[in-house]
Amino acid sequence: MEECRPILNTGLRGFSVATSRISDVDGNTGKLIYRGYLVKDLAVSAGFEEIVYLLLYEKLPNKAELQEFKQALSLERPVPPELIAALKTRPGTALTMDILQAGVSLLAHHDPDLSDRSRATALKVATRLIAKLPTLVAAWDRIRNGKEPLEPFPELGHAANFLYMLTGKVPDEETARFFDVGMLLHAEHTFNASTFAAREVASTRAHMYAAVSAAVGSLSGELHGGANVRVMQMLQKIGSVDKIESYIRQELEAGRLIFGLGHAVYKVDDPRARILAPMSQKMGERTGQPQWYEISSQLEKKAKAAFKKYKGIEIFTNVDFYSASLFYNMGIPIDLFSPVFAISRIAGWTAHVLEEQFADAAPKPVLYRPESQYIGEYCGPEECEFTPLDQR
Amino acid sequence: MEECRPILNTGLRGFSVATSRISDVDGNTGKLIYRGYLVKDLAVSAGFEEIVYLLLYEKLPNKAELQEFKQALSLERPVPPELIAALKTRPGTALTMDILQAGVSLLAHHDPDLSDRSRATALKVATRLIAKLPTLVAAWDRIRNGKEPLEPFPELGHAANFLYMLTGKVPDEETARFFDVGMLLHAEHTFNASTFAAREVASTRAHMYAAVSAAVGSLSGELHGGANVRVMQMLQKIGSVDKIESYIRQELEAGRLIFGLGHAVYKVDDPRARILAPMSQKMGERTGQPQWYEISSQLEKKAKAAFKKYKGIEIFTNVDFYSASLFYNMGIPIDLFSPVFAISRIAGWTAHVLEEQFADAAPKPVLYRPESQYIGEYCGPEECEFTPLDQR
Repeated sequence: MEECRPILNTGLRGFSVATSRISDVDGNTGKLIYRGYLVKDLAVSAGFEEIVYLLLYEKLPNKAELQEFKQALSLERPVPPELIAALKTRPGTALTMDILQAGVSLLAHHDPDLSDRSRATALKVATRLIAKLPTLVAAWDRIRNGKEPLEPFPELGHAANFLYMLTGKVPDEETARFFDVGMLLHAEHTFNASTFAAREVASTRAHMYAAVSAAVGSLSGELHGGANVRVMQMLQKIGSVDKIESYIRQELEAGRLIFGLGHAVYKVDDPRARILAPMSQKMGERTGQPQWYEISSQLEKKAKAAFKKYKGIEIFTNVDFYSASLFYNMGIPIDLFSPVFAISRIAGWTAHVLEEQFADAAPKPVLYRPESQYIGEYCGPEECEFTPLDQR
Repeated sequence: MEECRPILNTGLRGFSVATSRISDVDGNTGKLIYRGYLVKDLAVSAGFEEIVYLLLYEKLPNKAELQEFKQALSLERPVPPELIAALKTRPGTALTMDILQAGVSLLAHHDPDLSDRSRATALKVATRLIAKLPTLVAAWDRIRNGKEPLEPFPELGHAANFLYMLTGKVPDEETARFFDVGMLLHAEHTFNASTFAAREVASTRAHMYAAVSAAVGSLSGELHGGANVRVMQMLQKIGSVDKIESYIRQELEAGRLIFGLGHAVYKVDDPRARILAPMSQKMGERTGQPQWYEISSQLEKKAKAAFKKYKGIEIFTNVDFYSASLFYNMGIPIDLFSPVFAISRIAGWTAHVLEEQFADAAPKPVLYRPESQYIGEYCGPEECEFTPLDQR
C-alpha cells in the first residue's frame, strides 16, 4: 500500500503514480540511478550513446552492440529536405522550443513505420527521433541566423556532431566530452513534468512523436526546462563576484529563492551538480571567461550560508545551477539551453514511452484519466436554470 | 480529505487530482454540467460560440457579448500564409491529427502576444486558437486532396464556416445546427486524458499553444479521440441490420466489448448519446443512408440485452456511439472525426489552461511532478557495479 494523503492541487507531489524500471532518485542521499547504475559512475566512464542504449535496452552494451547502435544513430541523423523547407517558412522570431515542439510532430509525417505499433518498431522510432532531434535544433539555429543547415558529420559522436552542426567546427576532444557528459546527466530523471506528459500522451496509445512533442511542450515552461536559462540570466545580472552578497541580501529580503538552488526531490546537493561544477570551471578557464563559474561557486557558498543564517533553511544546488555556466562557457546560446536539455532528455522520454506502452510486468499501465473535484457552485448546490439569450 | 487508495499503474482512475470550476460529470445519474448548466439544456437552446463563451468567461453571454465574441472569433479565423506554405511541404500521407498537433505549434510562431503572459492576453490567445483550428483542419484536408484552401466565410457561424471551408458549400441550416450541437457536446468533459495533458503542460508555465498541441497529441490515441473512428469502422464491418446478432455473438465469445458502449465515468447512458442519436437518424434520412443509424440503434438494443443475458453486465452508450454515424452521415471523412473532436474540445482545453495558470482560488495548482516506484532491481537490491566497456 502506498502512503495516502490528499493531493488536490498539489501537482501529485510526493505521490507515486506508477512503477518504473527506468530510473530512481534517492533525494535523501543524493543518488540518481539509470537502470541500476549510479549516474556518478556512468558520468565518469560511459558516453551518451552508451547510456541511451542502457535506457532503451535495459543493459549496458558490449563493444559490438555499442558500435552497431552508434552506427544506427549516425545513419538516422539526416532530416528530410521537406522538413528543412518547412523550417524555412517559420518566422525568425519563433522560440526554438516552439520550433522543436512543431518539429517533432513534423518528423512524424515522414516516418514510414508509423502504422506498425510493435515494440521492435517503437525502439527503431525512438532511435530515429533521438538521432534527428539535434539535427533539427542545429538546422533551426542556422536558418534563423541566415545560414544554410549543415549535413551531419557521420564519423562524429552524437554530442560532437551536434556542436559541429551548430557551429560548423568540429569541437576539440575535451569540449565534446564535456558536452557529452552534460547530455548524459540530463538524459533521465524519473517522472519529471515532461516525462509525465510523454507517458500521459502515450497512455492513449498515441505514437512516439505525439508523446515526445508533448514532452517538449512541457519542457518549454519556465518552471521546467527554462530553469537553467533563469540561472544564467541571474549570473549575468549579478555580473561580478563582488555583487554576490548584495544580490543575496536583496533576494532574501524580497522573500525570493536563488535560481538553481532547491529541488522538488533532492534534500542534499543534486549529484549532477557536483559533476557539472568542475567541467564548468575548466571550460570557463579555457574560453577565457572564468567569471561565470566563479560567480556560481561563490554564490552557492554564500547563498547556502545566508539562507541557513537568516532563514534557518538548508538549500542545495540542483542540476541547473552549474549546467547554465557550463553550456554558456561552451558558447551555447542561452536560448538553446532548453533545446539542449530536450536533445538529452529525449533518451528518457522515449524509454518511458516504451515502458508505458510495452511494459510486460503486471499491472500494465492504463490510460491516464484522473478525476477532478467540481467546485463550480455557480447557482448554489443546484444546477443553474437556463435563461434564453433574449432574456439575458 | 480525499479518499485515498493505491494508484500505481491505474492511470489515476477515480482519483481527484485538482479542483475545477469548469465542468462536472455525475456518472451515476448521467449528468454533464458546463459551468453550472446542464449540457442537455445547452444542447437544446444554446450554440457552440455561446458555450465557448460560457467555458472561457464563466457566464452565459448576453446578446451584445455574444455578438462581440462571435465577431472576435470570425476575425481570428484566417491563418497566416506562411502556415499554409508549411502545410504544403507536408506529405499527403500524413495523419491529420499529426498535422494538427504540428499545426498548433506552428501557429505559436506567428502569435505576436506570446511573451505577454497575463490572463487577459491568455483569453485572447484562447479565442485566437479556437478560431484558427478549424481553418487549419479544413486547409489541410483540401491541400492533401490537391485543392487550394478556402478563405473563411466571415458571416457564417463557427460550425457552418468549418463545413464551408471543408466542402466549399455553405451548409443548409439544419446540417449546420446539427454540427454545431455535435461540437457543443464534445466541447468539454472534465479531466479526460487530453485535457489532463493540456493542464500538465500548462503547469510548467508553458504557453497555450504548447499545452493545446500536447492535448491534440493525447487525443490522437485510439483509446481517446480514435474511439468514434473505431465505432464507424465497426458499423461498416457489420454492414447491415441482419448481421448485428452474429457480430454481437462473435464479440461476446471473443471476450471483447462493443465499441462505443462503456465509459470510464458513466454508469448510465452518456447524456450526449441521447442527444446525438436523433440527429444521426434525421441526417441519415436526409442524405439517403439511413442504415448507419439503423445499425447503431439496433446494435445498442441488442448488445445491451446480450451483455445482460450472457455476461450479467449492463453496458451503456457513450458519446462516440452515435457521433460516429452523425458525422459520417454529414459527409465528414472518417479520418476527420478526431480532428472534429479536437476543434470542439479545444474550448475545454483552453478553459482548463486558463484555470491551471490563473485560478484565483486557493490552493493554486502547482507544477505536476509525481513520483514513481522504482522496481528496477537489475542487480538485486544493490546498485549495479559499473563494468568498463572493454570488459563487457
